Amino acid sequence: MPLDWQEFYSASARVMTRSLIRELLKLTRRGGIISFAGGLPDPATFPVEEIKAIATRLLDREANLVLQYGPTEGDARLRDELVKWMAKDGIHASRDQVLVTLGSQQGLDLVGRVFLDPGDHVIVELPTYMAALQVFRSYRVEMLGVPQDGSGMRMDLLEETLARLARDGRRPKFIYVGPDFQNPSGATMSDDRRTRLLDLAQQYGTLVVEDNPYRELCFEGAPPPPLAALDREGRVIYLSTFSKTLCPGLRIAWMAASEEFIRQFVTAKQGMDLCCPALTQAIAAEFCAAGHIYHRVGAIVERYRRKRDTMLAALSREMPPGVTWTHPHGGLFLWVRLPEGMDTERMLPLAVEEGVAYVVGSGFHADGGGRNAMRLNFSFPSEAEIEEGVRRLGRIVKKHLPATARTK
Amino acid sequence: MPLDWQEFYSASARVMTRSLIRELLKLTRRGGIISFAGGLPDPATFPVEEIKAIATRLLDREANLVLQYGPTEGDARLRDELVKWMAKDGIHASRDQVLVTLGSQQGLDLVGRVFLDPGDHVIVELPTYMAALQVFRSYRVEMLGVPQDGSGMRMDLLEETLARLARDGRRPKFIYVGPDFQNPSGATMSDDRRTRLLDLAQQYGTLVVEDNPYRELCFEGAPPPPLAALDREGRVIYLSTFSKTLCPGLRIAWMAASEEFIRQFVTAKQGMDLCCPALTQAIAAEFCAAGHIYHRVGAIVERYRRKRDTMLAALSREMPPGVTWTHPHGGLFLWVRLPEGMDTERMLPLAVEEGVAYVVGSGFHADGGGRNAMRLNFSFPSEAEIEEGVRRLGRIVKKHLPATARTK
Repeated sequence: MPLDWQEFYSASARVMTRSLIRELLKLTRRGGIISFAGGLPDPATFPVEEIKAIATRLLDREANLVLQYGPTEGDARLRDELVKWMAKDGIHASRDQVLVTLGSQQGLDLVGRVFLDPGDHVIVELPTYMAALQVFRSYRVEMLGVPQDGSGMRMDLLEETLARLARDGRRPKFIYVGPDFQNPSGATMSDDRRTRLLDLAQQYGTLVVEDNPYRELCFEGAPPPPLAALDREGRVIYLSTFSKTLCPGLRIAWMAASEEFIRQFVTAKQGMDLCCPALTQAIAAEFCAAGHIYHRVGAIVERYRRKRDTMLAALSREMPPGVTWTHPHGGLFLWVRLPEGMDTERMLPLAVEEGVAYVVGSGFHADGGGRNAMRLNFSFPSEAEIEEGVRRLGRIVKKHLPATARTK
Repeated sequence: MPLDWQEFYSASARVMTRSLIRELLKLTRRGGIISFAGGLPDPATFPVEEIKAIATRLLDREANLVLQYGPTEGDARLRDELVKWMAKDGIHASRDQVLVTLGSQQGLDLVGRVFLDPGDHVIVELPTYMAALQVFRSYRVEMLGVPQDGSGMRMDLLEETLARLARDGRRPKFIYVGPDFQNPSGATMSDDRRTRLLDLAQQYGTLVVEDNPYRELCFEGAPPPPLAALDREGRVIYLSTFSKTLCPGLRIAWMAASEEFIRQFVTAKQGMDLCCPALTQAIAAEFCAAGHIYHRVGAIVERYRRKRDTMLAALSREMPPGVTWTHPHGGLFLWVRLPEGMDTERMLPLAVEEGVAYVVGSGFHADGGGRNAMRLNFSFPSEAEIEEGVRRLGRIVKKHLPATARTK
């Protein structure tokens, strides 16, 4: 009798969903397709020569350490550098309040592992980061979405949600937000909403998970202080990464939180992978210590701002009336809304046929909404590809515009 | 009101235990202590020059790829090399039956995530790998221990356990074994027990998780084929690693299993960390493609065999009658039993004071046994340290020998 695989799976495995983005990425590696679907940095921003010099030096001088197992908490030098790096944003953490993670995704998984039981509640933004939904779902929690507007999560609706839960004797384990140039909306949370969010978290006795991978990629002005800088109680768990400012291939990210929570995350990470690679951590530590990380953000921002502007201009040129999009002040993504009734999921195979790809909006919605929306990435494609890709996209949108929208 | 951290923790977090080994490792970094507690490879075995040359070449030629995000499944070239590497042991997998993991520890966690629900049963060896106990415990399963002897897990007792469970209408999700130079016992499972284990797994409808990090480190003869090579049904999930044959600092390990299971592990890994670092994977792939991995095992084996022999000789010289130890044919560890009634946990602080450290046997026992046992590592300390460390250990053991044992 052949094995029945299914019967061995855990309840968690049964609800896991594969990332649409990552599945799609495979399709779009086919030649001729312009992909706005990924979230990849532009490889032209990778500091290849610096990494090469540092790796060589490390292997010459301390191969015994960088090729060996390391502490679960992460390389001590790197943690010290991360403390300095966060201080410039007003986050004052000690080394013991920092844990190095394998990408921010591991931070999200740690948050799930340490806090979430089946049936727990988690509050997320509408829309929110797709892979956060994916991992929280695997812990079989109930996700409650709170809509954003141009200034981030709406605090009036957050309060309503918290009050409704409280009336049922429930409270969420945490509120998950991306305050700076959020993925996918590109929105930045306003200063007063940040303060309000922390007040509400305190009032209703819940935690805040701040996912902040894009803060450095700021094209205009400066975002308000991170939630972690405003937090006075240890209520915020802060996640950040060097994937966008150094490169993703080292998978260097980190969590900052109270010592108590970090201790628990370290215990959980011991069971997950013992430790991150020592070599990649040492490269990142030296990269920071040499000051490179501080000096290179300007050029990345310059490049991405230009690409964003190219995409905004192309959208203005190519999109029919009734289509709207965000004007992000930083980050990697634009959020496009088609007229009500249009369905970006049904449109996607046609778009891929036409040679352009995006991510469907519903993937970012805990409530099944966003069917007429799509996320576009502008960091990876070249400016020429952005122009041609948006042209193709415009053609398809026009073709599928419902009669009602066309007559408007 | 200050935050009550505890109230936020998941049921899983509440049962997580911190690794005794890793905590102890920190203590033993103090000067003057000879540590037999870790499981670190000897840094003299690290192929520093080869890694340096490969890293430089990769950064020169394909920085765009090795510093970018990669597929969750792992670097395709590396998976092809792993297929070849396993073929020499009779394991015939396709690329789609291989998933690159961040250390074998991530493989263990994936096995937990994909298969285990609270209350499930898992069968482990007595003793077994401590960090496997740690991670399976975090899934709140019931662990049933089956004693080993010098030929590995006892099949008569395994059958008894399976039959007892079956009478209660239960069956374990899997049987977890380390057939080659097991951590911590050093025992190798005999050929006929391997066949019998697979037969029993089939008869009782369960899976086998084969953790095989030490197979290459074979000092005498050759171990029987891996369970994965004998498996005809896709019932074995095979875990292996380059941590002991290349170096641990790249954290390159992998799972081989049926395509169906690998697909589910990939889905779970997406939520855990998206992907392993591209740079470290590419280094490992090139290291294999150049043939280095095939040519270096001999020198490592030579070095570790000498260290094992030094430890065996020292134990013979220094230990009082009534103390016994295993004679492993490979791997990194020896297992020492003191006379009944002695307690290695109570003795440990005194040993550390005396300048020598080990891991207490109870940490490797799912049933709380092993109180009079200890695990000694011989791969990391130098031969001089092994001699001096065992001398110190012998002194302490003699001092704490119970009167009953002394008079024997």
